[in-house]
Amino acid sequence: MEIHDVPDSRQTGSTGLEFWFDFASTYSYPTALRIEKLAKACDVTIIWRAFLLGPIFQSQGWSDSPFNIYPSKGRYMWRDLQRVCNEHRLEFHRPSRFPRNSVLAARIVCAFESTPWIADFIRQVFSANFVLDLDISDPDVLSDCLRLLGQDPETVMATATGPSAKSKLRISTSNAQKIGIFGAPSFVIGHEMYWGNEHLEKAIERARQTSP
Amino acid sequence: MEIHDVPDSRQTGSTGLEFWFDFASTYSYPTALRIEKLAKACDVTIIWRAFLLGPIFQSQGWSDSPFNIYPSKGRYMWRDLQRVCNEHRLEFHRPSRFPRNSVLAARIVCAFESTPWIADFIRQVFSANFVLDLDISDPDVLSDCLRLLGQDPETVMATATGPSAKSKLRISTSNAQKIGIFGAPSFVIGHEMYWGNEHLEKAIERARQTSP
Repeated sequence: MEIHDVPDSRQTGSTGLEFWFDFASTYSYPTALRIEKLAKACDVTIIWRAFLLGPIFQSQGWSDSPFNIYPSKGRYMWRDLQRVCNEHRLEFHRPSRFPRNSVLAARIVCAFESTPWIADFIRQVFSANFVLDLDISDPDVLSDCLRLLGQDPETVMATATGPSAKSKLRISTSNAQKIGIFGAPSFVIGHEMYWGNEHLEKAIERARQTSP
Repeated sequence: MEIHDVPDSRQTGSTGLEFWFDFASTYSYPTALRIEKLAKACDVTIIWRAFLLGPIFQSQGWSDSPFNIYPSKGRYMWRDLQRVCNEHRLEFHRPSRFPRNSVLAARIVCAFESTPWIADFIRQVFSANFVLDLDISDPDVLSDCLRLLGQDPETVMATATGPSAKSKLRISTSNAQKIGIFGAPSFVIGHEMYWGNEHLEKAIERARQTSP
């Protein structure tokens, strides 16, 4: 899609693939687990963009996930997500609570997006939600994810709960809305956008073609 | 998805691929033009299922297409539909009016679903809407579609506007809702459902595997 009014705070001129996700988003789970291997095979750089779907849904008049508001859509999604995970040989356990609050986990990504461990952290958190059925809004759960990666939870949490991380996530969500994102996973390559896990391969191919 | 309460009026035990579509549905257009060739190559029988999305949307509280109600979703869809049509080398011209009333065209399909010309008629009507930008609610436009196929418009229209055709479309739409259809194109193979043009190949493969 044509993206107008790209805000200054957004990295522009990047030649990579922006992967926009919310840890609460069901179809973002298979994408998060698949994307790095596919991108590496095509020499495509991933720019990890955590944001919150909640405020975007709210601006459309939804106070809950559309999968909860519209039951037939929800029933289809859970069945389809199981099929998608089977197809990609990904473990999947339907979370006992959906959607889960992803604010703290997203703040950690925003605060530490350029660290070498962030991709592993993202996969850990998605697996905590969609395989282990753990409450990813619980600092203890996120601390366990961090410990598994050799990170000190106290240091990370102190930064992630500070004003800078909070501001970064607010800006990220606002940027998502400005560039026309309405769901997750979404992929942005220059002025083109793709929405949905099933379009990941197409998005990577587009990023490969447009890289300098 | 698990489909319960399959109504008696629905053909059950069919081993083909049920293709559920609305002539007003944007992504049903590329599917309608692609499906027969793909299905034939896999020896899969298509069961053409015209229905109306309007009453299903209304039951979700929408009085218009979600692509009109949610502008960012709509902007994405038009851009994406153009890309999809490019990819499949299908002509596409964004209709000057969306969505168009598809009731009469759907009644024709319901009344003549087992005729040898119905697949051609379906393609003609979709092309009228999404290539020629014609008003498919206009009986003259549909009459032209019928004439192109060597059918007598007067005879067809007399049947399609009769009580039996009207009842068939009402039942079809009610059946769609009962089996959990919430959008188009949708594909039903036994108890499995797939939604979206991008899942056509997957649905055909599923139908091929389950055919006796």
